[in-house]
Amino acid sequence: MTEWFVRPENKAADEMNTRRKQALAVLGAALDAVEPAQAIRRLMVRSDDTLWIDGRAYDLNRYRRVLVVGGGKAGASMAAAVETILGERIVAGAINVKYGYTEPTDIITVQEAGHPIPDENSVEGTRAMLDLLHDTTVDDLVLALISGGGSALMTLPVEGVTLADIQTLTQALLRSGAPIQAINAVRKHLSQVKGGQLARLAYPATVVALILSDVVGSPLDVIASGPTVPDTTTYAHAQAVIERYGVADTVPDAIWKHLMLGMSNGVAETPKPGDDELAEVYNVIVADNARGAEAAVRRAGKLGMNTLLLSTFIEGEAREVAQVLVGLAKEIMTHGRPVEPPACLVLGGETTVTVRGDGTGGRNQELALAAAITIQGLDRVLIASLATDGTDGPTDAAGGLVDGTTVERGAALGLSAVKALANNDAYPYLERTGDLLVTGPTNTNVNDIMAVFVFAP
Amino acid sequence: MTEWFVRPENKAADEMNTRRKQALAVLGAALDAVEPAQAIRRLMVRSDDTLWIDGRAYDLNRYRRVLVVGGGKAGASMAAAVETILGERIVAGAINVKYGYTEPTDIITVQEAGHPIPDENSVEGTRAMLDLLHDTTVDDLVLALISGGGSALMTLPVEGVTLADIQTLTQALLRSGAPIQAINAVRKHLSQVKGGQLARLAYPATVVALILSDVVGSPLDVIASGPTVPDTTTYAHAQAVIERYGVADTVPDAIWKHLMLGMSNGVAETPKPGDDELAEVYNVIVADNARGAEAAVRRAGKLGMNTLLLSTFIEGEAREVAQVLVGLAKEIMTHGRPVEPPACLVLGGETTVTVRGDGTGGRNQELALAAAITIQGLDRVLIASLATDGTDGPTDAAGGLVDGTTVERGAALGLSAVKALANNDAYPYLERTGDLLVTGPTNTNVNDIMAVFVFAP
Repeated sequence: MTEWFVRPENKAADEMNTRRKQALAVLGAALDAVEPAQAIRRLMVRSDDTLWIDGRAYDLNRYRRVLVVGGGKAGASMAAAVETILGERIVAGAINVKYGYTEPTDIITVQEAGHPIPDENSVEGTRAMLDLLHDTTVDDLVLALISGGGSALMTLPVEGVTLADIQTLTQALLRSGAPIQAINAVRKHLSQVKGGQLARLAYPATVVALILSDVVGSPLDVIASGPTVPDTTTYAHAQAVIERYGVADTVPDAIWKHLMLGMSNGVAETPKPGDDELAEVYNVIVADNARGAEAAVRRAGKLGMNTLLLSTFIEGEAREVAQVLVGLAKEIMTHGRPVEPPACLVLGGETTVTVRGDGTGGRNQELALAAAITIQGLDRVLIASLATDGTDGPTDAAGGLVDGTTVERGAALGLSAVKALANNDAYPYLERTGDLLVTGPTNTNVNDIMAVFVFAP
Repeated sequence: MTEWFVRPENKAADEMNTRRKQALAVLGAALDAVEPAQAIRRLMVRSDDTLWIDGRAYDLNRYRRVLVVGGGKAGASMAAAVETILGERIVAGAINVKYGYTEPTDIITVQEAGHPIPDENSVEGTRAMLDLLHDTTVDDLVLALISGGGSALMTLPVEGVTLADIQTLTQALLRSGAPIQAINAVRKHLSQVKGGQLARLAYPATVVALILSDVVGSPLDVIASGPTVPDTTTYAHAQAVIERYGVADTVPDAIWKHLMLGMSNGVAETPKPGDDELAEVYNVIVADNARGAEAAVRRAGKLGMNTLLLSTFIEGEAREVAQVLVGLAKEIMTHGRPVEPPACLVLGGETTVTVRGDGTGGRNQELALAAAITIQGLDRVLIASLATDGTDGPTDAAGGLVDGTTVERGAALGLSAVKALANNDAYPYLERTGDLLVTGPTNTNVNDIMAVFVFAP
């Protein structure tokens, strides 16, 4: 069970208020469900020499070696969990994590590296993975631990291209307005590991990728640039992106040469769907936003609420998404639709904030503050928004949990909710009203969970 | 059945595309359900001398006279429907409608008047209503026909206060950022008819108000300023609003005197909940957004879709609400939640547009265009947004119906959806792609209906 580090101001209110406690329990269930070490322990079961992963059996007697590679912010915690289950059956391992994101491991080497900008440690650690994989045989089982940040952390440019070259091109593409899918098509073709190439390097070993999704909708080929997932883009696509977004002039020569070589089939394409080399690759979602949202819904149901999981694909400006959540709450209050009170609607995704002020906050806190303004005076509604990594924007809070008294309590302290929202200044406001959600680092990231609670009259 | 005046460009696509036809049928069902004359005919049944309204029986033998009063943009169409049912049982009637919104009536006098700014015709027509009501007895049945715009159209300031005085104060309050509820509290206390006072003038007659709601959530005391609905605000509230929003200096003397007189009980308060004088007043919603949304859901269900009415309280910036609708569509596509395809989610309410460009469009067209950009390439999704009055923004279109090919079709015509959205220029874009919804004037207004369709693969 996640421990909730509730601010002192919140404590009295929470103790008095069963409803807020129930809301916290629902959010806590979501966090518990997506904590990667726990999730791995639920997903991986070892019985003597059989390893079950997500319902598929792997006969450990058949495999000469178990190797572990991978990268991402949750890597260390995932590695420790895997070691707990497999112990000395793991022969060797190398993973890359963000600076400061280390946990103790016994066998697997944890390399700290640069994120979001890759550095030489990213490359060095990725080379260490390749060294592990270079003599794999059909008798090897490779576990790939993939989580958010893995794209920067597992970096190994193709021959002749430097990190700086890729950085230059990426910046130019971002400035040109190219969508992230287009940029990723290019980057996959400048990497030795992205776009299924890590899995191909492990061929003919069996590969099981344990994937913690930090991307809305959990598209496997996007999470950490899909190092174990077939790529549907080609060198021709990459070249077309560069031309379409008018950055041809700024493309470093080495990149240009490599893409041309790729188009003339001088170097191998990224693995494509159906390729034999990926036939023994199994991609398993360890946790994602949907798991968290489902757990929240289950917990709310156990607490006697009527529940509905509406979407795990919610995007949009935080304060406007808040208006839609309030619209849902009002319908439940007025017409008992789409479910009767006591009701809990759960939504997942990741909102955005267009910063116009100079305050402190994050998308989840801003959503909560905007909702608080609109539900002012409604006495049966709670609205919560939570960053599952525990870090909402550049703050030490994870989000907000507001009700119909939030704005009134703020006013009693001399605070204007409208002004705080206008200045993107939700953090100090919710801190003083006691409506912050504070979890500390959660070792996971499956985007945000939002919940609308409408209690019975 | 509503006739859909489909643009030529749209026709070929519609004929080819059963899905778009189904979507149009669903939207058409919503419009049919809220057409006021039809709605009145469904709600009012006369059987010999018994008049049934919304399940309650009124014995026409018991009433010496049937009188009709009221105001609003749908007034003439409602009056004609009432005449069809009651014919010469109506002794007299006086209603106010917006200039140009007249329809032929036999007995009821239709006065055209100013909207949204009231003029002398508004006052004159309202006086005619008072003349009809001044000698009512317990043997009279008064039908009040209330619809959107009724607040401006039924205007009669208290003694000594002029229309110009009220206009001056309203402008000052709007500039000061006062919320509409606060402004209405003031205006109800400067009127002889608002805030339940029209119904009190009819006392001791029986009053049945037939109300077409143009306000999100259908709060009876807000629609047309609630002329037949008890008022919960007081002279003290009105005075407090003026002080809180710092407009005391700009309040015309006559208004100041009247509010002071009211606070010292020198003039009667507006009728309050429980007042005997409103005991025989029955407020009946003829049509509102919920009726429209419910009809849409029923029609979708008959077409074999799995349906859910999510909310009739949707507000927020149109392009951001669009993102949430797309998030709902993606969940249905990916996880079959909250309902399995073929699915139709219906939402009602009224979005807003923050104008930053100088293009042509409306909130529904802008929502549709924003959705089109995000669903590009999704081949099973349709998203619609429809202004039920047939007039979306300053255009002759009612909204938009977009799919995963809209942006591609626009690009083939040399149009950029992203640029059109940035310039608030949805109308010409959707006109050229054939994705406009065009209904012509619908004689009704129950805000907007939005629908998300996800068809089976």
